[in-house]
Amino acid sequence: MKDKEAASGARVQIKVKDKIYEGYLLESYEKDALLLKLESGYNIGFKKKDVDSIKVLRTPEKAPAQREKEMHQRKNLPGISMIITGGTISSQLDYKTGGVKPLTSPEQLLAIAPKLLETVNIRKLVRPFSMLSEDMTPREWQKLAGLAAKLLNEKENQGLIITHGTDTLHFTSAALSFMLRDLNKPVCFTYSQRSIDRGSSDATMNLQAAGHASLSQMAECMLVGHATSSDNFCHAIRGTKVRKMHTSRRDTFKGINDSPLAKIWPDGKFEILNKNYKKRDNNRQVNEDTAFEEKVALIKYYPGASSEILELLTDKKYKGIVIEGTGLGHVATSESRLNWLPAIKRAIQQGTIVAIAPQTLFGRLQPQVYSGGRELAAAGVIHTEDMLPEVAYIKLGWILGHTQNEKEVKHLMGTNIAGEINRSLSEKDFLY
Amino acid sequence: MKDKEAASGARVQIKVKDKIYEGYLLESYEKDALLLKLESGYNIGFKKKDVDSIKVLRTPEKAPAQREKEMHQRKNLPGISMIITGGTISSQLDYKTGGVKPLTSPEQLLAIAPKLLETVNIRKLVRPFSMLSEDMTPREWQKLAGLAAKLLNEKENQGLIITHGTDTLHFTSAALSFMLRDLNKPVCFTYSQRSIDRGSSDATMNLQAAGHASLSQMAECMLVGHATSSDNFCHAIRGTKVRKMHTSRRDTFKGINDSPLAKIWPDGKFEILNKNYKKRDNNRQVNEDTAFEEKVALIKYYPGASSEILELLTDKKYKGIVIEGTGLGHVATSESRLNWLPAIKRAIQQGTIVAIAPQTLFGRLQPQVYSGGRELAAAGVIHTEDMLPEVAYIKLGWILGHTQNEKEVKHLMGTNIAGEINRSLSEKDFLY
Repeated sequence: MKDKEAASGARVQIKVKDKIYEGYLLESYEKDALLLKLESGYNIGFKKKDVDSIKVLRTPEKAPAQREKEMHQRKNLPGISMIITGGTISSQLDYKTGGVKPLTSPEQLLAIAPKLLETVNIRKLVRPFSMLSEDMTPREWQKLAGLAAKLLNEKENQGLIITHGTDTLHFTSAALSFMLRDLNKPVCFTYSQRSIDRGSSDATMNLQAAGHASLSQMAECMLVGHATSSDNFCHAIRGTKVRKMHTSRRDTFKGINDSPLAKIWPDGKFEILNKNYKKRDNNRQVNEDTAFEEKVALIKYYPGASSEILELLTDKKYKGIVIEGTGLGHVATSESRLNWLPAIKRAIQQGTIVAIAPQTLFGRLQPQVYSGGRELAAAGVIHTEDMLPEVAYIKLGWILGHTQNEKEVKHLMGTNIAGEINRSLSEKDFLY
Repeated sequence: MKDKEAASGARVQIKVKDKIYEGYLLESYEKDALLLKLESGYNIGFKKKDVDSIKVLRTPEKAPAQREKEMHQRKNLPGISMIITGGTISSQLDYKTGGVKPLTSPEQLLAIAPKLLETVNIRKLVRPFSMLSEDMTPREWQKLAGLAAKLLNEKENQGLIITHGTDTLHFTSAALSFMLRDLNKPVCFTYSQRSIDRGSSDATMNLQAAGHASLSQMAECMLVGHATSSDNFCHAIRGTKVRKMHTSRRDTFKGINDSPLAKIWPDGKFEILNKNYKKRDNNRQVNEDTAFEEKVALIKYYPGASSEILELLTDKKYKGIVIEGTGLGHVATSESRLNWLPAIKRAIQQGTIVAIAPQTLFGRLQPQVYSGGRELAAAGVIHTEDMLPEVAYIKLGWILGHTQNEKEVKHLMGTNIAGEINRSLSEKDFLY
């Protein structure tokens, strides 16, 4: 039965019980079964005996990442540099496991975005490390910020693209927003949710849009990627106001409590959506300012939560703790056995900075409305306005890297340093 | 200047520098200042010398919560019962502080929803406790579930309304979804984001819609409230698939990874949006099943997170830990100093159940795509599919209240018990 066999890695259409499935054939460990990688990223298995037919759409040799193109760089185009850090955008599908594995050379990445090379001249392509983004730590943020500052201060570079895994990309974009002071040029983070050898890879459009954004007037750390699930246009979103909101969709990154900065079409059309951005100044020097206190934690409050964790962090001499609080900025403050107020007071007395950020993600904290909020504020807790909890954590770590004076820390936490506080936020700014 | 004075509690229009502000006048501690509570919930202060005029729209005596109406119950209407637990929906504005304080009698709540009393006959109105929802603990869930079961098994009751503070309402709705087995009739949680004496209170429409939902065919624990920021219609959302997503908007509750069950207009029009619901059966007896293991924690993974917290919880003999992981269900598993894998393995070896839930909130975990996910799964970590982290925590606590056999716990965590796993979820189901 020839029409029921195909090599792993082939793109195929499989007919099973009158339904058609399309995807890449994976190696299956069970010899009676076929395993297919669907466009959605899901793997699906079939018993061979149920398969009516297999139609090969493309043989594995022709999968795009394997056509390693020569890089046709045009020196007359505006120069930028690119930092590659790892993640799905630097990976290809492993047909043995159905998972992904790293690209063997960074040039493979450019091969899938030929249009990018018609927009910019990529002067330098640097890979300081290669890791999946869930493994990143503040030390990698510091390394990246240092490298970015160096490249941004080279007058031949008009901007910077940084490719990165999606899992913690919004953490890195926020960290660099604080660590790159007096930013002079665009820093465009981009990614993909599908490895670049897949027909459905979102890397191509994201890279093209990032190329256009890198030449824009916005001297901002921004995340550039799909605005919808289609390949129609991208959003550039402020690095401190963005969050990964879906495990697998291409338009996983959404602006929270802030409008996206711009809408960018792959052909270069560029629409500014938010006038509140810092302007490019090629003569300005960006300052690398990467001090970061690692003894800062982000913890979660919820019904049933014991304050034991807070006690432990206090005992371990943590310098700062951000609590994801409920509603307008609350934790249990009543006389119940799970009251967090005593542990919070003890932490503050010992010199730990305690902040509360909104676990709702959207909206602004208002500690003055309920008595619990007022008690927390009176105890010295900082309510972080409309900051994302993840950003409040990074901001507190960065501030504590610079000063541990309580008054100064409080003042800086309330100061808008990198667009992380949106003073003009209104209740209308809700994505839903 | 008579037109620049008004009593606190009055609804006024203030003219300041050619702009008009409308709201309730609060008592101000600074005698040179006026403090106004805007409809948005925000307080705004003015210097008296900048105020051009004050127009009194309603004197404080006429504020709605102070008109305590006689309850006109119609005994011929279908009977339901109502449990009042506290929260903003049981509060009124305190004009001294601009905050809110509890109602003095539960009947005040009904006074603002006269239409509710044209739909149902509220046979019993019970207030088992009165607390802001951030103070709730699993013991209150158990108390509520017990009371709910008793009322639902009274044949005169067609359904149940439970009013509750918004901060942790989605936790309580999830907890009761597990604790009320073989549910026979609708359990409708509702709330308000504005205290009931405010012109803008969302309590009126929410209570009306909850009344209609309580007579519906859906034997589900559901949250009923504003679907948009206007007073046009409500959504009923499954209790295990809902989350508070905004600090202050009326339509703060959104369904995550599941379509709302129904759209409900205040006049009683009822449109079913999701056919996947359990049908009412008035002859069925609901079973109260409230065992809950409190030594379960919900913690967060993020770049820079030390596994110290995990170590502490293991040492303290926690029975279960849910980690909010990144992306498809990850934590650092590389050889870096912040690798969480050793601490996770130790916890599992000691008998602690470790689960990972999606911090993206939307989408489904897929541990098999990346090597890190595969390593975690091989170590015995449970990936919680498309469950909200908050719901995964509650489900694990509830399961561990019944069995601590690892194999059984794993099996039950993967079993859809109360609609918390959506097997037919597709990437199209994204709210944005």
